[in-house]
Formats: sequence, structure tokens, C-alpha cells
Amino acid sequence: MKKIVMLHGVNLNMFGKRDPSQYGTLTLKEINNKIAELSIELNITVEFFQTNYEGEMVEKIHQIHQNSVDVSKENGNGQKGIDNNEMRIDGVVINAGAWTHYSYAIMDALAILKIPIVEIHMSNIHSREPFRHISVIAQIAKGQITGFGVDSYLLGLRAICGLI
Amino acid sequence: MKKIVMLHGVNLNMFGKRDPSQYGTLTLKEINNKIAELSIELNITVEFFQTNYEGEMVEKIHQIHQNSVDVSKENGNGQKGIDNNEMRIDGVVINAGAWTHYSYAIMDALAILKIPIVEIHMSNIHSREPFRHISVIAQIAKGQITGFGVDSYLLGLRAICGLI
Amino acid sequence: MKKIVMLHGVNLNMFGKRDPSQYGTLTLKEINNKIAELSIELNITVEFFQTNYEGEMVEKIHQIHQNSVDVSKENGNGQKGIDNNEMRIDGVVINAGAWTHYSYAIMDALAILKIPIVEIHMSNIHSREPFRHISVIAQIAKGQITGFGVDSYLLGLRAICGLI
Amino acid sequence: MKKIVMLHGVNLNMFGKRDPSQYGTLTLKEINNKIAELSIELNITVEFFQTNYEGEMVEKIHQIHQNSVDVSKENGNGQKGIDNNEMRIDGVVINAGAWTHYSYAIMDALAILKIPIVEIHMSNIHSREPFRHISVIAQIAKGQITGFGVDSYLLGLRAICGLI
Amino acid sequence: MKKIVMLHGVNLNMFGKRDPSQYGTLTLKEINNKIAELSIELNITVEFFQTNYEGEMVEKIHQIHQNSVDVSKENGNGQKGIDNNEMRIDGVVINAGAWTHYSYAIMDALAILKIPIVEIHMSNIHSREPFRHISVIAQIAKGQITGFGVDSYLLGLRAICGLI
Amino acid sequence: MKKIVMLHGVNLNMFGKRDPSQYGTLTLKEINNKIAELSIELNITVEFFQTNYEGEMVEKIHQIHQNSVDVSKENGNGQKGIDNNEMRIDGVVINAGAWTHYSYAIMDALAILKIPIVEIHMSNIHSREPFRHISVIAQIAKGQITGFGVDSYLLGLRAICGLI
Amino acid sequence: MKKIVMLHGVNLNMFGKRDPSQYGTLTLKEINNKIAELSIELNITVEFFQTNYEGEMVEKIHQIHQNSVDVSKENGNGQKGIDNNEMRIDGVVINAGAWTHYSYAIMDALAILKIPIVEIHMSNIHSREPFRHISVIAQIAKGQITGFGVDSYLLGLRAICGLI
Amino acid sequence: MKKIVMLHGVNLNMFGKRDPSQYGTLTLKEINNKIAELSIELNITVEFFQTNYEGEMVEKIHQIHQNSVDVSKENGNGQKGIDNNEMRIDGVVINAGAWTHYSYAIMDALAILKIPIVEIHMSNIHSREPFRHISVIAQIAKGQITGFGVDSYLLGLRAICGLI
Amino acid sequence: MKKIVMLHGVNLNMFGKRDPSQYGTLTLKEINNKIAELSIELNITVEFFQTNYEGEMVEKIHQIHQNSVDVSKENGNGQKGIDNNEMRIDGVVINAGAWTHYSYAIMDALAILKIPIVEIHMSNIHSREPFRHISVIAQIAKGQITGFGVDSYLLGLRAICGLI
Amino acid sequence: MKKIVMLHGVNLNMFGKRDPSQYGTLTLKEINNKIAELSIELNITVEFFQTNYEGEMVEKIHQIHQNSVDVSKENGNGQKGIDNNEMRIDGVVINAGAWTHYSYAIMDALAILKIPIVEIHMSNIHSREPFRHISVIAQIAKGQITGFGVDSYLLGLRAICGLI
Amino acid sequence: MKKIVMLHGVNLNMFGKRDPSQYGTLTLKEINNKIAELSIELNITVEFFQTNYEGEMVEKIHQIHQNSVDVSKENGNGQKGIDNNEMRIDGVVINAGAWTHYSYAIMDALAILKIPIVEIHMSNIHSREPFRHISVIAQIAKGQITGFGVDSYLLGLRAICGLI
Amino acid sequence: MKKIVMLHGVNLNMFGKRDPSQYGTLTLKEINNKIAELSIELNITVEFFQTNYEGEMVEKIHQIHQNSVDVSKENGNGQKGIDNNEMRIDGVVINAGAWTHYSYAIMDALAILKIPIVEIHMSNIHSREPFRHISVIAQIAKGQITGFGVDSYLLGLRAICGLI
Repeated sequence: MKKIVMLHGVNLNMFGKRDPSQYGTLTLKEINNKIAELSIELNITVEFFQTNYEGEMVEKIHQIHQNSVDVSKENGNGQKGIDNNEMRIDGVVINAGAWTHYSYAIMDALAILKIPIVEIHMSNIHSREPFRHISVIAQIAKGQITGFGVDSYLLGLRAICGLI
Repeated sequence: MKKIVMLHGVNLNMFGKRDPSQYGTLTLKEINNKIAELSIELNITVEFFQTNYEGEMVEKIHQIHQNSVDVSKENGNGQKGIDNNEMRIDGVVINAGAWTHYSYAIMDALAILKIPIVEIHMSNIHSREPFRHISVIAQIAKGQITGFGVDSYLLGLRAICGLI
Repeated sequence: MKKIVMLHGVNLNMFGKRDPSQYGTLTLKEINNKIAELSIELNITVEFFQTNYEGEMVEKIHQIHQNSVDVSKENGNGQKGIDNNEMRIDGVVINAGAWTHYSYAIMDALAILKIPIVEIHMSNIHSREPFRHISVIAQIAKGQITGFGVDSYLLGLRAICGLI
Repeated sequence: MKKIVMLHGVNLNMFGKRDPSQYGTLTLKEINNKIAELSIELNITVEFFQTNYEGEMVEKIHQIHQNSVDVSKENGNGQKGIDNNEMRIDGVVINAGAWTHYSYAIMDALAILKIPIVEIHMSNIHSREPFRHISVIAQIAKGQITGFGVDSYLLGLRAICGLI
Repeated sequence: MKKIVMLHGVNLNMFGKRDPSQYGTLTLKEINNKIAELSIELNITVEFFQTNYEGEMVEKIHQIHQNSVDVSKENGNGQKGIDNNEMRIDGVVINAGAWTHYSYAIMDALAILKIPIVEIHMSNIHSREPFRHISVIAQIAKGQITGFGVDSYLLGLRAICGLI
Repeated sequence: MKKIVMLHGVNLNMFGKRDPSQYGTLTLKEINNKIAELSIELNITVEFFQTNYEGEMVEKIHQIHQNSVDVSKENGNGQKGIDNNEMRIDGVVINAGAWTHYSYAIMDALAILKIPIVEIHMSNIHSREPFRHISVIAQIAKGQITGFGVDSYLLGLRAICGLI
Repeated sequence: MKKIVMLHGVNLNMFGKRDPSQYGTLTLKEINNKIAELSIELNITVEFFQTNYEGEMVEKIHQIHQNSVDVSKENGNGQKGIDNNEMRIDGVVINAGAWTHYSYAIMDALAILKIPIVEIHMSNIHSREPFRHISVIAQIAKGQITGFGVDSYLLGLRAICGLI
Repeated sequence: MKKIVMLHGVNLNMFGKRDPSQYGTLTLKEINNKIAELSIELNITVEFFQTNYEGEMVEKIHQIHQNSVDVSKENGNGQKGIDNNEMRIDGVVINAGAWTHYSYAIMDALAILKIPIVEIHMSNIHSREPFRHISVIAQIAKGQITGFGVDSYLLGLRAICGLI
Repeated sequence: MKKIVMLHGVNLNMFGKRDPSQYGTLTLKEINNKIAELSIELNITVEFFQTNYEGEMVEKIHQIHQNSVDVSKENGNGQKGIDNNEMRIDGVVINAGAWTHYSYAIMDALAILKIPIVEIHMSNIHSREPFRHISVIAQIAKGQITGFGVDSYLLGLRAICGLI
Repeated sequence: MKKIVMLHGVNLNMFGKRDPSQYGTLTLKEINNKIAELSIELNITVEFFQTNYEGEMVEKIHQIHQNSVDVSKENGNGQKGIDNNEMRIDGVVINAGAWTHYSYAIMDALAILKIPIVEIHMSNIHSREPFRHISVIAQIAKGQITGFGVDSYLLGLRAICGLI
Repeated sequence: MKKIVMLHGVNLNMFGKRDPSQYGTLTLKEINNKIAELSIELNITVEFFQTNYEGEMVEKIHQIHQNSVDVSKENGNGQKGIDNNEMRIDGVVINAGAWTHYSYAIMDALAILKIPIVEIHMSNIHSREPFRHISVIAQIAKGQITGFGVDSYLLGLRAICGLI
Repeated sequence: MKKIVMLHGVNLNMFGKRDPSQYGTLTLKEINNKIAELSIELNITVEFFQTNYEGEMVEKIHQIHQNSVDVSKENGNGQKGIDNNEMRIDGVVINAGAWTHYSYAIMDALAILKIPIVEIHMSNIHSREPFRHISVIAQIAKGQITGFGVDSYLLGLRAICGLI
């Protein structure tokens, strides 16, 4: 069974308490539950991770790198060194929150990964303040989904499934 | 049954013949077939429309306006004047192609609509040439999906279903 | 009797259905009726033209060129080749809609004309989104009238009369 | 009878002596006479004011504020405190001259007014030097008329009549 | 015998009537005649096409794609499916007119072609207004010729011959 | 008694050791003592917090949110769930240090708060290097005080008292 | 007893009549009264000055220069020529209104002063229109206070007291 | 005998009190005396004018216009209406002070003059703050002299003599 | 027989050794030979000149000026002082190499010439690095030919023949 | 013996796993070993530090400040309070990774130090993506070394030795 | 007797042959004669130098450095090593021609000099093409004189005399 | 033995006479001596070259090209045509002086080389005036060393040794 990591960036633990016109009323836990439900339907495993520390996010991505494999180079037996199949990670979905707009550190960390990355946002960042129009991580993502509230997450999960 | 219009913009009739690293190898007809298959699963009707004429696209959007209804204002019986339910349109998915980057005419036309609009792109416009980073229609769309090839269309169909 | 052509650009056939806070509630037909009424008072003929096709607008302007005359060069008998006085055109009033902001094609077409051109807009383009502050056709117009709703048309008709 | 104030900004007392290709050959007095003639036809009163002092213009606008009334809030009897109907002012037409391009002070003063404002220019500021393309007062005006020489004033008078 | 398509963009049917200091006094028909004369000398066939509709230009380019062949991949027998040698197209010369400066749609269409493209302009776009300094199609053309009036066309014909 | 949180951002624990011409010679502890003295005079409680970790600052702000109440919506009994009056927070004074200029994460966290926020700086950021002229958190603060050294803090305390 | 001059710039005599969401409902006279009350508590003298003429403001600042003294150079007896202690001025608080954003003349005048200057604004200029983000006088002020309505004045008075 | 007007702009009455490293230690009166001495040597008359009011400067320039004559059009008898030779003005030297950088009003006033204008500055505006690099009046002056302290005035006087 | 000077700028003596994907494999000598061959066909004389010194290029252009004649002013007998017909120069073709992008000195030198100038480049400068998109000499050239390798030179020769 | 601190910023613990064309194949541990070898040759002590947390980097720099001394002020006995010579730090070499491009917090922390700082990068940041051309910490470093892979570290060590 | 060097930059040997509306009709020799005449009146020696080679200009400035002396440091006997008083140089007047706008090499060379430098231009560079508005050498000159034709040189000579 | 060429650009012959705070007090000869000493230690040969003529620098680089060999393509016997091993050049160190910031000619010349290039600067160009932040030759250098005075040269020599 394929495994995805769902990365939630800074301030996203506040979903449900933040401007509902942009972010809806569901809490992060409720959003994760919805994702988990869909993962069963899609027959994949999802690991959830949230942090407000850029450094912790960077190191989580490093750890994903240790457990992932370059899909374009994989042979029949999987990459050497990832014996425990349960730990092996096949894709990343990330909502980097405000870091989206300035954290070249997270961009650089993601650039090390050789598995597909999907960038999502609950609000339509392209129709808000100008500083939100720029995503410094867009260039290393396979694709981007914005504006559909919690559905952005569910669509992102489907998207990553199409890529792995 | 809800009805969606899938708008394909300029040059998109050339899918399958255009740079496959960006746009894949499926033809527009094959893409539409995939969309049609999914629409059955999602229990919606999809109308397809492609044009290379900005004016024809604008007028198609005007016609959608005649057959659509402001979902926020709808009463139980539907809007007056849309007697034929089969003609009634509930949402728009649009891949405007190169018009995305300069056609304020199409943006203005879409802005008249009161039904949800989803903007999609097969390639990740945010990681290509700078002129493609700007979408002049993003501000009137509910959300945007980019970079997943033909899956961008399928995800867009799911996204619009979540909005109508 | 002098003759004016009133050019309506893209989306303007939707007047009355578009954002009323910017464009009012009158339909294009009702606006044209008001213009026609004023033209009687001003003792001029007005021809109306609307299109959503840039190409059609360009060719209409070419046709106006065939039927117009350089007022600064006209001798007593009128220009050779415009025998039918009823076809002779003396001025243009244009609301180019969204094309105002990017259609160098229409600008180039208008630049060929040697009769006066008046640019009008129903909304005050100078107080809306930044992209609307720029009119690429302003440099070839004699003058510009913006912000008075349907009165922009009526004032434009008076303005062109003062120029021909 | 409605009353309008016609505000002439800096250097405009030099009309007739300034570059005739842009500003024509009429003096300010002759222009005012033409406006006065039209005001009779339109059945309104016009007060004229010209100054080369930004401070004097600002204070004139303050005085207009004392004598004007918010048309959107007016009840049947008129606003309290404007007993003398002759002093009551219903609209402003302004040609701010060079101040148009930098005087945020005049913009702020005009922003206090609750009666309609029409901005006019004799030359087409949108086709001259780049610094003239920007009007810092455009955002508080209802509309703008540029490029018709003395006719800009007459059209401005008609425009303000349509707004009050 | 090699075959070239000569694409004339928007407003170019007005050659001879447009600003002669920039565009000369020859009509499009006369220009085409000169091109045809030279084509005989160069022993190639030239097809002429002019349109003022961006959509029609895009579709013409699509049709050229159907009838052309990737010269870098061609085997001895020519590409499969282009049986009729007379229809086979070997190169494109384009004067896109004002579209040069904003039509990403035409740029995208041209980018699909695998045969050489030569961009020409009668006037020297690099010494005129700033907006004309930018050609959005320059990046997909093999080369560019500007400023020689009708000779730009003749030189373009020679240039494309050197490339096919 | 009202309660304020005084947030000190990155590097501010180094006050007294940093460029004295900009930041004076008092240590953070001495500054806090001065603030505490004034708080007694103003009859408010002040909680102090300093961190060099963006993540820790973000989470502190989240915790403030849990203990604060939307003053505009408060009823007589206070918001449900803030039983312990001593924990209830009424306002925030923040000197975000260098984060001021790029941390959209802290800006987003502050934007969740419904209590007043005052931004302060010891140096006059508007007269230093250009990058310091921009505060990305200014748009969510009620007001800003810059340039008065330790007095900026004391004035900020008075300012927040006037707002709560 | 120390003496301060409180300079009110253009349009500020209209406080109470101007947009109350930005500027409150107090008149300038009422604001001055509040400042006067605080000055008694702070044991300083305050002179008030308002003008809508840039020239008058400049000359007032020149006059302040005549009556002020370079605090960094002062000897025990005070500067020569300031015999009348009551006229001696120790600091300036200025709200330059719209001049803040373009009057280099006032900036140059203030730059001559050798006594401290505090810049204040009732609204938070950093969260309003872009043109208000720039203060051309910020570089010569000791510090800036923005956004606290009438409290900006009172805080400014306290701030200048800390500097003289 | 030819007559020159020496226009001193805003703050220039403070020469001698302003930053001596930029402006020297001479007062305006002393500078004028030096100019007067040189004028005797050069056999011209000089009128001095200083104001801190933009409006007063503008009107002074208007008055100069009344008393000046277009040198390129002058016939043997001088322009009609300038009977009193002593009032006739042949050239202008202007140091506009801070207005140099934003007063389009003064630029427009100067542009009306048909006699030569020389722009001078005591400091080298091209090596100071960026805002001083731009002179909005440079485009209407014949030439510019900057950076020589009081000698800028004397050189300016010689320069204007070479032009009249 | 007409005479042309072919000016080769900096680094162009390295043709054949420089990036062949941009500049081909022919040496400068081989290129000149091809040009010479064509000149015979075109019945003109060509003089070749290459230098890596900007100063030498400038002085060569000055020397061309001495031997050339303003074609628009020439009478039947040729310009006085060019007795030796063999020395008389009728046109210039220039490939300025990297100087194209910054040498205003060469631009100024070329601007003195009154004979036609054709600018050529072997690579398509409009589709390479951004700094190569700008040609500071384009404004003084009659036209520009870019992107055709050695054919750019041959087309340039034909172009200049059409101009002289 | 002099002591240096070698600061490795965000993501640098991933050396050897990151894009080898930019960063080589050595791990951080192997790089540190090479540095240690060279330090023996250079007779200095090197302390290594790596973190992915901006806050931890900032606090490490604060701690360096406690243990360092202003070399320009040092007397014979060393600075008071640095009794333990082994702890005394004489210089800093920093590769800040992606923080280089936005962390004003680290820049501010480094600015407090009075010992020399050398900035190094393994890749040539000046020839990569535009955002990498800007180093916000360059202004506080003594010098910068970029592009030599692991040799950048070794050269940096030599450089700091030349400065302490 | 003081000695000045008059430096003429690129293309200036063409005076008299270049656009007379900007540069007059005098040749460089005639200009130098006028300067020489004035130098007698001013009792100074002038050395003339013109080159079209940037390198030669740079080396000339280096040689001036060898023969000049820092006026601010000079003692009664003059600087050591300048025994031959006739060689000693006291000031520089430079018209750098087109190099003015890009030659940082000449700027750097001039910056080494410790004697006064005066920058002059015959045309008013501030009212011509935008690229001419910028002088990269202005920041190292004492002052600048532009726009007076040959008089710019004569005024420059007087200006340098006032500085040495 | 490997051979390096050390290229010194414009003005660098003035080292020791130029601003010592940026460039130290050593003369170029003394710097070269230090480089020569280190070259013995590193067992390489160094050739020195300095010029103030861009053209001479370009041609020197061309000559280096003749004597160098593409290290990536070299076979056992060395490249044909470089018989004299003593002439064979293996690397370049360049301090281009002010040319660094604008000489695309030198950049283009260097780009032809296939041996490694190291760019060095004595001052830290990244912390000086903005125009010095840009190096147009950085994109073709392997790496860059700035800010260490004469040590920049020595470090550069070590760096190039690591690359050849």
C-alpha cells in the first residue's frame, strides 16, 4: 500500500479559529479525519504532520527523504535500505501556510526529494493580497491546488495518487 | 442532475500534438472522454466547448449566463425563465490556454457569471516562463488547479462538484 | 448631416446584466435608444455597432476608414470616392470594453483613421483595479470621458459633435 | 435652482497665453463666459474660482463642504444649517492643473465632500508626458473628461448636472 | 519544390493606407506580388494568408502543422501522412502586426510547429514606442528582420530559404 | 484589571549589547522593569515574552488567542470559556525585531487575534536601510510607534491602554 | 518650563468632519484642548499652529528655528539671542497631513531644526493606500507614532517630552 | 540694458542657517549682493525674488511672462505692449529649492515663458539622496548648473547672459 | 559602384571558436569571403573592418563620416570634398557584438552618419539572456536582422543595397 | 591558539544527498573532517555547529558574542570576562544556506558581533536563480567566497585566518 | 600659475559635424581656442586632451594623479615629488561624452584624484533621452554644468577656478 | 607544471594610490610579488597581465584561448596545436575592476574559454554601492571571492589550483 505524508505548515493548527471566510470552520483534526476517510477509499496510507517551526518542517522533510525512493530509478525490489515497507513514503502533499511566500529553506528541503510533491492552499492565493500571489515552493511542486477549502486537501490527495 | 460546462481555450484542440513534456499525449477528444467517464461516476452532465476565437468564448460565456442561476439567490422552484432544466448550468470549469495571461475580455465575461468557476491548467504555470505565472482570470475563479496533466481536468470536475 | 459611428466593444452587449454598481441597469438597446434620441436633438446620424470579436471590430474600423475623410485635407467638394454622402462618416465614439487595456490591434486600426475619435467608459477606469488605469487606445483618441454611466455615451456624442 | 462650483487650479489663469496646441486660445474669462452661457441653458447657477495657491484651493473646498449637503442622506427639508438656499452647493467641477499629478492635499480635501465631483482637463493627459497620465484625484471623482479643450468644461458642466 | 506560408496579421490588409512613413505606400496585394516574383527566382512556392481574427490565425497555424514535417526527423521518404507533396509546408514567414506585442495565443500556436519560422516587421519596432520593443513571438522564431519596409518581406523570404 | 502581553521578537534579548546608537544601553531586563513600573501606574498587568524562534512566537500568539476575547462581541459576562479572569488577555504590544520585515507567519498568527495590537520599534525603521521601511505586520496592527528607544515601549503600553 | 510647538498640516482643521472611521469625531479645537490638558500634567507649554498653506508651514518652521536652540550644543546660559525664555522652543510635534507624502519643502525646513521632531498620524498610514506608506519627512524625525486617533497626539506629546 | 530675474524658491531665505556642508555660510542677502556685484560687471540688471509659497512663485512667473518677449519672434521695435523698457525681462535664473523635485505647477508656469531659463543649485543634487536626482523643471530649462555653492549663482548669471 | 563598410565588433574575430550552437563554425575570414562573393553578384564594393577596441570602432565610424554623403541632400555632382569616388561610402552594416548592449559611444558615433545603417546579429538576441534583448544602437539603425547565422550578414548586405 | 566557529545553516546536514551538480557528494561530516585537517595545518581550533532552526542559529551567534572580543579594542590582557581562553572566539565562517536570502534575523544577530565574519557558499549563487543573487548577510560580512564546492569552506578558513 | 586639464571624451572630436541643434557648429579646435582665450583672462594654464579610447582616458587621469596634489593636505612647499611646478595640476574639467552614462572605469579613475573635478555637457542631458539623465560620474564631481553649448566649457573653466 | 594567468583590469595599476580603506596600501607590483611567492609554494606558474584597455583585455583572453585546452575533452597527448607545454594555460584568475559591472565584451570573451575562471575582488562588492552588487561576468566564472584585500588574490590562486 502506497504511503503519503500530509504536511501542514505554520498557523494551520488554528483552522476553525481563523478567518472563516477564507479557511472555513473545520478544525485541523476534523480536516485530517476527512482526509483519512478518503485515504481508505483510495487505498493509501496517510501520515499527518503539523508544525509551527520552520526547522522542524525542514527536518521532517529530511526524514521523508530517508524513507523515500526515487520513483524514476526504482527497480523491481525497491531501493536498497528501505527494508521496512511500512516506512517507505511515496508522495508529499504540503500546505506550507505563510511559509509559502518566503521560506526558501523549505523550498530547498523539498527540492532534495525525488518523490512527487503537491502544493495545496485552502484559499485562492491568486486572488488575495499581492504577497500571497507568489509561492516560492511552486517551482519544485508537480502541481498546485488552491481555493477549495477543505476540498483542496481531498483533491490534493487524489492528485498525489495519480502521480505515484 | 447538475450540469457543468467545460471550456477549452485557444490551441487546446492541439493537445496530443503539442509539447508532450508539458501537455501529455492524449488528444482533446480522449481527454473529453475521460471527463465524460468521470461525470457518470459523479452523476453530473458535462457540456464540452472549445474555440480558438476569443469572441466565441466570450459569447459562449454570455450564453451560459442566460442559462445559469445565482445559486445564492435561488428559491425552491429555480430561477424564473429557466424552464428547461436540461439547459440549466450550475458551474464552469475553464482552461483558457494562453488567454489566461492577457484576455481581460474573458475575465470580464466570467465575472458576470454568478455560478462557481474553476480554473485549470495541465502544466504547472507557476514553474514555467514568468509571463505564465500571472493569470488574469484567477481573481474571478473560486479556485485553481495546475500541473497534473489530464488529471487537472478530472480534479477540476471533482472540485466544481464540491462547489455546486 | 454629419454621421457618427458608435462602437461598442467586448461584453458590452451584456449591459444591464453586469455589475450594476459599475455599469447601471440599462440594456445596450436602451442605451442606444437614448443615444438615438440625443442624435436627433444634435442633428446628426448615428450608426451602432457591437461585437465581441476583436477581428470584427478591426475590420469595422477599416470600413469606417473607407467611408471617412481627412477633415484637415477636405476641399469644398468632399474627398474623391465618397460619392454617397449618406455613407460618409465624420467621427467615431468608442467604448472598447476590456480591449481598452491590451488590444494594440484595435489601437493600430484606429490610428489609421483621420477623423476624430472619442473614447468613453461607463465606469471611472481611473479609480478601479490598476490594470484598468491604462488605456492603450488613449494615445490615439482626441479625448476621453469616463465614469458617468450611460451619460458617458451622451457626453461622448456631444464631444464628437464639437470636433467634427 | 442647483448650484455648481467650477474650480480652476494652478496656472489656469494663463489660458490663452499658454501652449495653444494643448490649451487653445481662449482666456479664462472667455471660457467662464461660455460656461455661464451654458449654465443658463441648463438652468443652474455656477460660481467660478481660480487660485494658484494650493492652500487657498484647499480652503475653498472646505468652504464648499460647509455649504453642501450629502445628497444620499438629504431629507425633504434639506440639511440642517443650510438655511440660505442660495449658498447651498450641489456639485463641483474641477480642473486642478498641474496639482492633478501630486497634490494629495487637494485630493484629501475633495474626499471630505459628499457631493459629486467631476474632474476635467482641456488636453488629453493620457497621451502626453508620462507624469501626466497619473491623476491623484481621479479616485475621488465620479468621472473624468479630458482632451476637448474648452468643450471639456462644457461637457463637465453637463456631466455634473446629470449627477445632482 | 519547397513551400512557404506567408502569414500577414491584423491590420496588414490596410498597407498603403496606413502611416506611409512607417509602412510605405504599397498595398498588401502589391507586396504579395513582389514576394511572388522573388519566389519564382528562388524556386519556391508561397502561399499567402491574411486575417484580422486571432482565432483564424491560430487555426491557420494548426493547419500548417498538419501539413508540415519536422525537418530534423524526416527520413528519405518524407513524413507519413503527407502524401500530397503540394500541400507539404516547409517554413513560415510571419508579420503578426500588433499581435506581436501581446498574443501569447499565436506564440503558443507557432511553438507547436517543427518547421523554421521567420518573424518580420516593415518598421523598426526597436526604435518606436516602448510597447513595440517587446515581441512575445521572438522567442519561438529562428530569426527576426525589422525596418526595411517591403524589403523586410523579401529578405524574410530569402532567410527562410536558407533555413529549409 | 486588564492584562497585556508584551512580545519581544528575535535578537531583542541582546538589547544593551547591540548597536547603542540605535538601541540604547539598557538590557531587556531593565526595559521590562521600566515597563512593569509604568504598568503599576496604569493599573494593568503585563506579561513578558521573548523568543528567538519564529515557531515559539507563533504558538505564543495562538495561546493568547485562547485566552483573549473579541471585545466587539463581548457580552456582560465575558466570553464563554475564559473563566479564569487572571488568564484573560486584553491587548498585545509587539516588537517583532527583524521578523517585522519578512515573517508572514507571525503576521498571519496576529491576524487571528481579535484584541488590539500595537507595533513598536526602538529605532526609527523609516529612516534606516530600505528593507526596514517595510513592516509586513503593520497592516494588522492598530498603530505603530517607532524611534523613541525604550520610550517606544512605554508609549506602546499607554497606547494599548487607550485601546482596551 | 519647556515649550513645544504642535504643528497641524493641511486639511487638519477639518477633523470631525472628515471620514470618522479614520479620523474620529473630535474637532481640531477639541483635540487641542485634550493636548493642553495633558501639557499641564506634563508641566510643559504647548503652542498650536495649523495652516493649509505649505509656505506658511515652512515659514512657521523657520520662525521656530529662530527661537530654538541646538540642545547638543547648549551651554549653561542658553543660546545667544534667545533672551526671552518664554519664546524659546524645545521640540516639535507635527502631523503634516497629506504633505507627509510629497512636501520635500517641509522636509527641508524641518531638517534645519536642531531640536527633536516627532511625526504623528491619527490613522495607521502603513495599512492604508500605498501612497500613504511613504513619509518623506520620516527621515528627519526622531520617531513616528501612527494609528491611535487623538491618542497619537497625546502619545506624541509624551514622546517629545522624553526627548527634550 | 538687459534684465534678469533671479528666482529663489522655498527655504532659500534660510541660507547661512542651513547645513553649511551643502549650502555654505553666506546668507541670501550676502549671496544677492555678490550677484549684484557681478551684474554690474556684466552690464545687466537683476531683480531678486524669494518666496516660500508655490502660488506666489507661480504668479511671479506669470508676471514675468507679461513683461517678457519671445526673443525668436521679436521685431526691431520690440513686442507690442512692453512700452516701458525698464520692465522688460530677458531671462530667468531659478533655484527652486525642494520644489525642484515635485512642483509640476512651477514647471508648467516656466513652460509658458519664451525667454531663456537657467536652473541652478548650490549643492550637487546628482550626488545626494535619490529623490534629489530628479528635477521636474530640467526639461524646460535651457541648462543646469549644480554643486558650486554661491558660485552656482554667479555662473548661472553668466550663463543666462550668454543666452539673451 | 556603391561601397559598403562591414563593421565587425568585439570578439567577432573569434567566430568559429565560439559557441557553435549560437555562432556556427565558420571563421570570420570565411564569413567575409561569403560576403565578398555576394557583393560581386550585387555589384557593390565591400570594405571589412574588425576591432576589439571601442575607440578604434568609434574612429572608424568617424572616418566613414568623412567619406560619406547625406543621401537625402545629395545633388547631381555628389557632395563637395569627396572627389575620390572610390573612397565614397554609401552604407554601413554593423554587428557590434557585445557592445550592442551598452556602448552608447558607438551609438553616438553612428548617429553622426547620414548614410543608412543596418544592424545584424548572427544569433537571435531576442530569445537569449534578457540583457541581450536590448540594443542601444537599434534606435539609430534603419533596420535589424537577427538569428540567421552567417546568412544574417548576407541578408544585411542585401538590405543595405535596398537602402542606398 | 585562535578559535573559529564554523556555522552551517539550514539543510546543510543534507550535503551528499542534495543536487550533486551544485553541492558535490561529500557529507557534512566529511566536509568537517577536511576543515579539521586544514585547521591543524593552520594552527587554529575550529568549532562546528549546524542547525535547521533559525532561532537556534541566532542564539548560537549570541553565545559567540559572549565569548568573543572586539579585536579593534582589545588590550594586552584580553577583554574582561573572557577568562577561559579556550572559550574565546576570534572569527566566524558561515554558510547560511537558504537563510542567506531572507533571514534578516540572522543578519541582525551577526551584526552584533565585533569579530570578523566570512560568508561562504558551495555553489556560485551569482550564477543561479535570481533570488539567490541577493545575500542579506553580505553587508555585515568582511568578505564572501562562492562556487568552489567544499573548497569554499577551506578557502573560507584561510580567509578568516588572514583576518584574525 | 594654476593649471587645469580639460578632458574631452568619446566622439567629441566630431563637434561641428554632429547634430548642430544639440552641439552647435564649432569644431573642437575652435572650442579649445575659446577656452584658451578665457584661460588667459583667468590667468590659468589649460592642457587639452581628447581620446576615443576609454583606456587612454583612464591612463590620462592616472597621470594627472601623479602630477596633482591633495589641496586639503598641501603644506606651504607643495607635495613632495612635484618638483616641476609646470607639471603640477590643480583641477580637472571633463566632458566624458557618451561614457558619462556607463563608464564606471572612468568614474573609478576620477575617484582617485584629490583635486576638484567639474563635469560639463554641451547639451542639457536632463531633458534628452532617459539614458542620458543618468551620469555615473556625477557622484565624484564637485559640480555639473549642462546645456549651454560651448559656454558650458567656459563656465566650467570659471567654476574650476573658483574651486582651486 | 600548471600555468595560470592573473588578469588585472582597469585602474588596478593604481593599487596603493586608491582609497586605502577599500583597496589597501600595497602596489600592484607588491601584490604580484605576493602571488608569485605563493605560486612557488603551490608549484604553479603564474603570468601577470594588466591593462586599462577593454580591447587589450579581450584580445589577451583570445590569446589565452589559443593556448588553453578544454580539460574535459583532453586526451593523453594534449590538444593538437599546443606543442609548447610552457605556453599551455590551465586556468584564469580575473579581477576585472570596474568592467565587472558593465563589460559584456569581456564576459563574452571569457565565455569562449573552456578552462576554469575565478573572479576576485579586493573589496566586498556586495556591501558597497548598488551598481557594484552586479557582476556581469559572475555567470561565466566558476566561483567568486570578494572582500579580503590582497588575500582575495591569494585565495583566488588557491581556488584555481583546486579546479585545474
